[in-house]
Amino acid sequence: MNPIRIGLLGAGVVSSGVVKVLERNQAEIRRRAGRGIEVAQVGARSLDKARAALGSGVAITADLDAVATDPSIDIIVELIGGTTRAKELVLKAIAAGKHVVTANKALLAVHGTEIFAAASERGVMVAFEAAVAGGVPIIKALREGLTANRIQWIAGIINGTTNFILSEMRSKGLDFDVVLKEAQRLGYAEADPTFDIEGVDAAHKATIMSAIAFGIPVQFDKAYVEGISKLQAADITYAEQLGYRIKLLGITKRRDDLPGGGIELRVHPTLVPEKRLIANVEGAMNAVVVHGDAVGSTLYYGKGAGSEPTASAVVADLVDVTRLHTADPDHRVPHLAFQPDALDSTPILPIEDVVTSFYLRLRVADEAGVLARITGILAEHGISIDAVLQREAGDNENQTDLIILTHDTAEGRMNKATVQMQALPTVLQPIVRIRKEDLN
Amino acid sequence: MNPIRIGLLGAGVVSSGVVKVLERNQAEIRRRAGRGIEVAQVGARSLDKARAALGSGVAITADLDAVATDPSIDIIVELIGGTTRAKELVLKAIAAGKHVVTANKALLAVHGTEIFAAASERGVMVAFEAAVAGGVPIIKALREGLTANRIQWIAGIINGTTNFILSEMRSKGLDFDVVLKEAQRLGYAEADPTFDIEGVDAAHKATIMSAIAFGIPVQFDKAYVEGISKLQAADITYAEQLGYRIKLLGITKRRDDLPGGGIELRVHPTLVPEKRLIANVEGAMNAVVVHGDAVGSTLYYGKGAGSEPTASAVVADLVDVTRLHTADPDHRVPHLAFQPDALDSTPILPIEDVVTSFYLRLRVADEAGVLARITGILAEHGISIDAVLQREAGDNENQTDLIILTHDTAEGRMNKATVQMQALPTVLQPIVRIRKEDLN
Repeated sequence: MNPIRIGLLGAGVVSSGVVKVLERNQAEIRRRAGRGIEVAQVGARSLDKARAALGSGVAITADLDAVATDPSIDIIVELIGGTTRAKELVLKAIAAGKHVVTANKALLAVHGTEIFAAASERGVMVAFEAAVAGGVPIIKALREGLTANRIQWIAGIINGTTNFILSEMRSKGLDFDVVLKEAQRLGYAEADPTFDIEGVDAAHKATIMSAIAFGIPVQFDKAYVEGISKLQAADITYAEQLGYRIKLLGITKRRDDLPGGGIELRVHPTLVPEKRLIANVEGAMNAVVVHGDAVGSTLYYGKGAGSEPTASAVVADLVDVTRLHTADPDHRVPHLAFQPDALDSTPILPIEDVVTSFYLRLRVADEAGVLARITGILAEHGISIDAVLQREAGDNENQTDLIILTHDTAEGRMNKATVQMQALPTVLQPIVRIRKEDLN
Repeated sequence: MNPIRIGLLGAGVVSSGVVKVLERNQAEIRRRAGRGIEVAQVGARSLDKARAALGSGVAITADLDAVATDPSIDIIVELIGGTTRAKELVLKAIAAGKHVVTANKALLAVHGTEIFAAASERGVMVAFEAAVAGGVPIIKALREGLTANRIQWIAGIINGTTNFILSEMRSKGLDFDVVLKEAQRLGYAEADPTFDIEGVDAAHKATIMSAIAFGIPVQFDKAYVEGISKLQAADITYAEQLGYRIKLLGITKRRDDLPGGGIELRVHPTLVPEKRLIANVEGAMNAVVVHGDAVGSTLYYGKGAGSEPTASAVVADLVDVTRLHTADPDHRVPHLAFQPDALDSTPILPIEDVVTSFYLRLRVADEAGVLARITGILAEHGISIDAVLQREAGDNENQTDLIILTHDTAEGRMNKATVQMQALPTVLQPIVRIRKEDLN
């Protein structure tokens, strides 16, 4: 059988990985897919850069639209990133009847509904394993491996840059700014690292996982997003003394306790018990825990970025699409794991309704009655306390650090309690508040 | 659309899990599969026991053959275990044109070639996600998620009983016999635990993973199998002092360094660096590390046994089969991940040709020149040393424990060196030898 012909849009690190992996493992892939997969054409804005990145073995053109609509091409692989031009090209490819494989989480988290609808209409597949956790087949696990389950929650380290920074802050006791510079020097962080360190990238990925876990549309605009740039070394140390690690987690959770239900979708620094496997995921690695009602917790771990790890996911999608491209759409996995007519409208909850436990650090005057007043305020708001740790602040003998771990509470309550505690004259600095998850 | 109709063979814990999960999550499963999945009939030897296990909602018969060939049934789920009657029934179901889902690792590891051939011939699927690592979708990851890769090795904790025993031995400093009794009391070990503790169950699973990773036939008879029943508490302690944990691993590895290639397939206690995530998998949990040339190492973790975790895998297979049961066979994933005509004959290597590093413990006379003689023998056989630890044996001042970690060597060389070392008059007890893997 003739090889299936793909068109690559973009000539960056992932494209070059795809070209390399397809070349090197062509025999192995053909043994699996029953058919070769061949790069017919690459579309890239700069021909020179593309030639340098991809070598001389592939045909390159600057006309990306021509690639997207080339009648001789079966599958378009979109690797240019961003949400404007990428959207245009993906929709054009779909309209031309081509299947699409993409690594673009921003595109799907923001425009997924429109793109999947267009693809279903045209009877083509849009595959996106590479959009979350790089080479780790987490999309496949969620869409196919765990279909027996009512999935209850997902919590993932899905941004390597921030996990690298947090790992370094903890192991070396360094401050955020120092480690960020190191990460930039090593190539783990971009020159403008905002998307990573402020949690936006993780939120794109969490949004996609949320949709395929619960059968809801992608709703990036409803995600709560908080990054790690304000995190202080002191809190990482205190957390460790209490048996926790701080990780930037993308979390999505089904809330069956609310009338009508609800779904939490959020990214923020999180205390995790150090005995959990995910707490021990270090450096730029990714890991996702999925909790289903039948299977319990399962975890998926590996490289979440990089040329060949991401290409691994792209090529796995190419093999899937190659196998199913002439199949009846009923024989394919639905884009969002659930049949399009079975998506539901369970709302994403505002952050005030999210329930977690909390780590609180208060710099207080070292005088009698302070702890009583603070715990009194928490009690007034129905927030119960799990543990208290008091530490000399070091530089000032009249002040002390008071660390409190709470039990679960709605964020709205904690907001009110925080305002009241902050107003106490004996609370001397802004209260540090970090959410905590048990992940059992 | 009418629900798809399944026939269950067996009425044990997994069957009852399948019935429960299908009932409880019917709506969720239908939203995904686009069609309900209904238990039409259960075949079980004892009707009373089956009724007690499955409740009154399902039709039960003692005529298993009738279930296997019932014209109104689409998919047969084989959960009776064993390799004789199970094989008969599975082949009967296939001959009757039914798809088969099975959790039976022994059956596939031993008779897989015959069963898959019959299924291909008849154009039906045999799905077996539940056969390895229970609810963890490792079969799907290997067959579909990592298809871009030339897989290089797999190492897995794929038997919960032995991992529970090893975890308890380490954390409580207890001997094997004591912990085995505790495991039996808690239901983690069978009354006759031989299959688990001697590594046979893990070898069945490793055999299946070996076939789908490398595209070779299942060859259980070529697997090297060594269990944990001879493991001593002292070696777990020494290993820990050196920064290692001892795990019973199922390992399969591609050896490209040999002319003509070769595949290692083995189960044995193994020292693993404690900083590896898999070294920190405790209790009855399972985890599998897969190393591919593009993606690097990925890890899959979760419950490897139990009623609903195993049912999770069975039902995921049912959803896959439901989606693809009327599809052209070309649109389905090949049974062993590779096209049947693309399986190859790379040989499974004898244990003498396996390459690992070693942990050695020698009880030696505490006198001058002992270490020199031992390291001399190792050097003579081209075995280089990574670390040496000498410890007072405690009960006898004239003896000492000498622990040596070697670099990689072929097992055959180590066998020869061991015979020579053992023959030294200053080596006072049988040498303890445990293989060691870096798993990087």
